[in-house]
Amino acid sequence: MSQEPDWNVLTATCPSRTSLVRIANKWTAMIVIVLGRGRTRFRDLRAAVEGISGKVLTDTLRDLERDGLVSRHVYAEVPPRVEYELTDLGRTLHGPLLALGDWAEAHIGEVLEARDRYDTR
Amino acid sequence: MSQEPDWNVLTATCPSRTSLVRIANKWTAMIVIVLGRGRTRFRDLRAAVEGISGKVLTDTLRDLERDGLVSRHVYAEVPPRVEYELTDLGRTLHGPLLALGDWAEAHIGEVLEARDRYDTR
Repeated sequence: MSQEPDWNVLTATCPSRTSLVRIANKWTAMIVIVLGRGRTRFRDLRAAVEGISGKVLTDTLRDLERDGLVSRHVYAEVPPRVEYELTDLGRTLHGPLLALGDWAEAHIGEVLEARDRYDTR
Repeated sequence: MSQEPDWNVLTATCPSRTSLVRIANKWTAMIVIVLGRGRTRFRDLRAAVEGISGKVLTDTLRDLERDGLVSRHVYAEVPPRVEYELTDLGRTLHGPLLALGDWAEAHIGEVLEARDRYDTR
């Protein structure tokens, strides 16, 4: 019988909060959505996630690698080729983050109408 | 036959990106998770989402209200009572955001192990 801690993201000091902070993030969502299509080179990832800076992409990938969600593959070519892919753990997060992207695309019409109503009231 | 635009959150200028930015956010996630339990007073919301500042809670609730996800109810009492609840649209987002919180709680053990491996390599 295992005794699991009662993790709770709503508790400020709970370690699970640090994971939520990482995954409930727009850049994480977009990167994981793209990596869900398969292993991707850094430059292709940067092109796919429009508007991301090289620094933010580098930093976010390093954070995701540290959390065990993404693995990094370096090939000794000239110039060096670097590819990223979701780990098994990262793949379990792909569905939930894709659902967020799908939600945004499916409901943006209603959101835009709500913004118009709010701004003209 | 309706002609829907091809919304795509990966496109920097797509309106759906502005919605993803709002929902792929740690405070949005925690607030929507708490409001999923039912209509909540401001002070109770602030207590439930540990560590959130009054200003961030106020700003995030206003953004969510503007996007049509949260409704605000003011009662003319002394002192005034203000309650928030998810709209019908907001309720469609509760599942996806709860899934993120559940993921963080379910996998924090693996994430902590990955961080240890990364930091000692």
